[in-house]
Amino acid sequence: MAFFSAHRGGWRIQTMASLKRLLVGSPIRTARLAHERLTKKTALAIFASDALSSTAYATEQILLVLAAAYVAGSAVSFSRVVPISIAISLLLIIVAISYRQTIYAYPSGGGAFIVAKENLGTLPGLVAGASLLVDYILTVSVSIAAGVEAITSAMVGTRFAELHNHRIWLCLFFIAFITVANLRGVREAGAMFAAPSYAFIFSFMALIVYGLVRYYLNPGIVPVPNDVDLKVAEGYHAQPLNLFLLLGAFANGCAALTGIEAISNGVQAFKQPESKNAATTLSWMAILLIVMFMGASILGYLFHIHPMEHETVTSQIARAVFTGPMHWFYYIVQATTALILILAANTSYAGFPRLASLLARDRFLPRQLSNLGDRLVFSNGVILLAVFSGFLVWAFGGDTSRLIPLYAVGVFLSFTLSQAGMVVHWWREGKTAQTDTAESAPARARSPWRRYLVVNGIGAVATFVVLMIFIVTKFVHGAWIVVLLIPLLVQMFLRIHRHYVDVAQQLSTEGLVGLRPIHHEVIVPISGIHRGVIAALEYAKSIAPHHVTAVYVNLDDLATQKLREKWQQWGSGVNLVVVASPYRSLGRPLFNYVDRVRRSSPNVIITIVLPEFVPAKWWQNLLHNQNTLFLKATLLFKKGVVVTNVPYHLEH
Amino acid sequence: MAFFSAHRGGWRIQTMASLKRLLVGSPIRTARLAHERLTKKTALAIFASDALSSTAYATEQILLVLAAAYVAGSAVSFSRVVPISIAISLLLIIVAISYRQTIYAYPSGGGAFIVAKENLGTLPGLVAGASLLVDYILTVSVSIAAGVEAITSAMVGTRFAELHNHRIWLCLFFIAFITVANLRGVREAGAMFAAPSYAFIFSFMALIVYGLVRYYLNPGIVPVPNDVDLKVAEGYHAQPLNLFLLLGAFANGCAALTGIEAISNGVQAFKQPESKNAATTLSWMAILLIVMFMGASILGYLFHIHPMEHETVTSQIARAVFTGPMHWFYYIVQATTALILILAANTSYAGFPRLASLLARDRFLPRQLSNLGDRLVFSNGVILLAVFSGFLVWAFGGDTSRLIPLYAVGVFLSFTLSQAGMVVHWWREGKTAQTDTAESAPARARSPWRRYLVVNGIGAVATFVVLMIFIVTKFVHGAWIVVLLIPLLVQMFLRIHRHYVDVAQQLSTEGLVGLRPIHHEVIVPISGIHRGVIAALEYAKSIAPHHVTAVYVNLDDLATQKLREKWQQWGSGVNLVVVASPYRSLGRPLFNYVDRVRRSSPNVIITIVLPEFVPAKWWQNLLHNQNTLFLKATLLFKKGVVVTNVPYHLEH
Repeated sequence: MAFFSAHRGGWRIQTMASLKRLLVGSPIRTARLAHERLTKKTALAIFASDALSSTAYATEQILLVLAAAYVAGSAVSFSRVVPISIAISLLLIIVAISYRQTIYAYPSGGGAFIVAKENLGTLPGLVAGASLLVDYILTVSVSIAAGVEAITSAMVGTRFAELHNHRIWLCLFFIAFITVANLRGVREAGAMFAAPSYAFIFSFMALIVYGLVRYYLNPGIVPVPNDVDLKVAEGYHAQPLNLFLLLGAFANGCAALTGIEAISNGVQAFKQPESKNAATTLSWMAILLIVMFMGASILGYLFHIHPMEHETVTSQIARAVFTGPMHWFYYIVQATTALILILAANTSYAGFPRLASLLARDRFLPRQLSNLGDRLVFSNGVILLAVFSGFLVWAFGGDTSRLIPLYAVGVFLSFTLSQAGMVVHWWREGKTAQTDTAESAPARARSPWRRYLVVNGIGAVATFVVLMIFIVTKFVHGAWIVVLLIPLLVQMFLRIHRHYVDVAQQLSTEGLVGLRPIHHEVIVPISGIHRGVIAALEYAKSIAPHHVTAVYVNLDDLATQKLREKWQQWGSGVNLVVVASPYRSLGRPLFNYVDRVRRSSPNVIITIVLPEFVPAKWWQNLLHNQNTLFLKATLLFKKGVVVTNVPYHLEH
Repeated sequence: MAFFSAHRGGWRIQTMASLKRLLVGSPIRTARLAHERLTKKTALAIFASDALSSTAYATEQILLVLAAAYVAGSAVSFSRVVPISIAISLLLIIVAISYRQTIYAYPSGGGAFIVAKENLGTLPGLVAGASLLVDYILTVSVSIAAGVEAITSAMVGTRFAELHNHRIWLCLFFIAFITVANLRGVREAGAMFAAPSYAFIFSFMALIVYGLVRYYLNPGIVPVPNDVDLKVAEGYHAQPLNLFLLLGAFANGCAALTGIEAISNGVQAFKQPESKNAATTLSWMAILLIVMFMGASILGYLFHIHPMEHETVTSQIARAVFTGPMHWFYYIVQATTALILILAANTSYAGFPRLASLLARDRFLPRQLSNLGDRLVFSNGVILLAVFSGFLVWAFGGDTSRLIPLYAVGVFLSFTLSQAGMVVHWWREGKTAQTDTAESAPARARSPWRRYLVVNGIGAVATFVVLMIFIVTKFVHGAWIVVLLIPLLVQMFLRIHRHYVDVAQQLSTEGLVGLRPIHHEVIVPISGIHRGVIAALEYAKSIAPHHVTAVYVNLDDLATQKLREKWQQWGSGVNLVVVASPYRSLGRPLFNYVDRVRRSSPNVIITIVLPEFVPAKWWQNLLHNQNTLFLKATLLFKKGVVVTNVPYHLEH
């Protein structure tokens, strides 16, 4: 919208443009759109922030569900966090191995949308696309909410403790901040990510190692849990520690897997050999994720951490581990946790607009989403993401645990579709290989497609089972929203697509043979005779010298009589029609007149030439009837009618 | 705006129009604009509501100032309400007699604006006009605030007592209600006014008579004042009962005179003989006003009423007077008081828009204010009045006593100007009479202009003295706002006038000799080749067959190459210009191209023909770039440029 800095009259537009420039910066040339290739170390920092940051809240999400059995009297319930975490870690290994295969198969980037669309067809592709869009939005909401909780947790016991009550505003502030940063275009991505990501990894690892060492040297340091502030997952009531509850806790903990697919989307960003580097980075990320997640869960178990309303589990662990002279390190942990979570939200700001633009290019979303903005960013997508995630944070009170039930549906649905797509991919490759075998035997040996198929098959089944567990255990807690939303989104994609295809057909030049001549009828609505009207009449006569009619709405018989007399001098042979207006309206009588002309000459193009004088200063517009504007708005959309403004510019 | 019910595309406009119809009703034909002539009884009800209603709060305004001496220890201070009220009544008699003369001199309606303008000149006329506009706004704010206070006073001691804390909302509700009623057009005025006005007069008279009788039969019924809730006029601190304080109390009480000029504005509404009937009605009104005001002040004195925060003085008097079996009559008094106050506000809804339209016709206010709306009402004036008075109520917390210091400046300024105007009027008439005398002696005898001049002279001096007292004693309490505002308004009137005169000169056809021929250059910005573009090209060629250029903004070299190829078939010899756009903007390069053409051919009219396809359903607009709209907004105000939309209508 660089053209907004208009001439005279565009004053309001200009002010807005200046404000935009201030916030977002000057436009960037298209030529500067080039790829920055990443080393493994930088790539890990960028792509892993989303996945690793989930260790900040995954353990807590398990404990929150187990708390329902604890309040019902089960003394052992919290200890179940360890086996559940092990199960999640196994699932994580399966998913990671599956995605390594995707990386090799799709070196140009294999997001769930592309993989599902290519292998399973358009509809599954759209389902995957819808899931991912929802997933990106929730990543922002959950990460920001968790980041803010890390900050407010650190305030417990200080005089800023009441910050907890204002967390929605803090969340919205951070979302606004990231949004503006992304509208500017985050070109300095690598540098920005590396330091905080590694700081988080380092401080979290230090927490785990130091915690375990201290515990085994002196098990007596464990604090006595105080259950005054105990928190139970929203929607869970006191109940025995049964299978359903354990599955619910497992499903909640699967939030740890979110973000693991990030690398497979961005293979192209790696230095050569892209696939190999990406796969190695993925393995590293998976290992880090398992160590950190298991470490948090084990420490939570050893230190008897109970989930609390005003303090996160991570914060409680860090507080228990770093006591005495090491207390300052507690703040390092909280600060790096908050930072990595905010960075994790930032990753969605790359993913969401990019996916939306892919969908828009395939005509499943409004084409405005595929426009590169001034700063080489898909600005509209960035703004949409900010609006939706901000809304979610507000609607769920900025509470991570209330957002989690919505989160994993989209994630696991896209996992399942992506893995299922890979199964079909290998199956097709296998068939091609078999055909090839007739010609060249070594081809078959080179592609162990059966093994690949089995690996992705296991991945697909495992993630599908988890998806089902998730939907069943979390349906009433919020998963229903996403279960309902995804088909609606797909429905919307299809409807939008149908419209675009239809428009393209209607606008197609097929069947036309060339430009045809036009028969004109020109109407000039006049309010009297002045220089503005004269200019309009001159213009009208130049279009169709013998088909011009001036129309005057009679609001006052005396004024009409005067006009008729003046017309003798100025009409220059132009036909003058006076129409009555019993209700003092200008538009209705004119509108009716135009309709009559249209009916009597259906094959003619009617041009309405509107005289309009343009004041020199904007405030002067307030002193004039905006009749021309109203007429324009009314007539603009009439079929067979062309509206032309002839401005007459006043000097001062 | 009846023409708003547009065809396709006007969906939003249509919804707004339906809402408007529901609130305001269907339009009324101009032919129904006729005068309803009033009997004296009905006229008294209509014109007196404003003046009489002020008795509901005038006594209280005096007591509020006297309270400043009471809290300083002066035991007698509240008794001063009686002499002050007598002084105000004398002033009232002077003003009433003065206005009787105006009524005879201006049988067609002699508002302060007209009288001052005709006799003193434009500038004093504008000052009077500004004062009156301010006065009308304050009448609404003060009356509504006092009406709401009458309601909340009646709630003291009931479980609705806290209504007092929500009075701003109540005020805004009543203003909104009256506004809608007036936008519908209050044709049934007479009937609507008569009942509540006479009910108020009757109940207030009953209060005074019954109160005086009870007091003289049994002086012991007087309640002991409880000063817990005592209220002192805003801005007054405890101080001795000196002259300045007494003058302040007097100035406050002059609020009783507001509205007395109403009849002189509306002489034409009376049955014949208009002037005589109007003058008689004015006398009656003045007598009623004095009786009611003096009655309230004397009762307030006799019953030892002290002004209170949560209850009005009138309510306290009525409560003290009507005890035991007569208690129900208290509610009659409060209800009729609230009703008359709301009706009083309603009178400004006739006055303000009418005066604004007079000023607008003389080109001192935006001409939109002189438009009769759908319902034969000056709708814009009604809305302006509602906005300003609502703002005042909100800004001053709906507190009558805080609004009073702003009120009387405008009133007394317009009184003074009007009376001074009458003095000049008689002087001129006297001079004419003297000239006539030479021819016919009886003429002089018929016009006792010297006596009239003296009467109006006394009126002018008296009101001017009160104006000065008011400004001096109330300046710091809020009068400064109006003292500042009136010159600013006059300044604005003059500036608006200058603009209109200037525009009329610039638009004057003087110096023109007839329609001149036009040299065209037509530019068609295109985004590709489709039926919409073809239609635009056909139109462009029909205007100036050999001066059409299609302009394409190059955003993508490949697409541009394709377009060039297609142009061979569809261009029909039209020149194609491709412009570069390094920042991916459409507007800026086009804008620059248009500028280049303008510079190279300064005497040519450039027509920009914008192809635009119009979707069949409104939501489909969301799926298309609104580029045409943006281009239009940018190019519309360029000098020498005419913008034409050629719509192509999609079917479904």
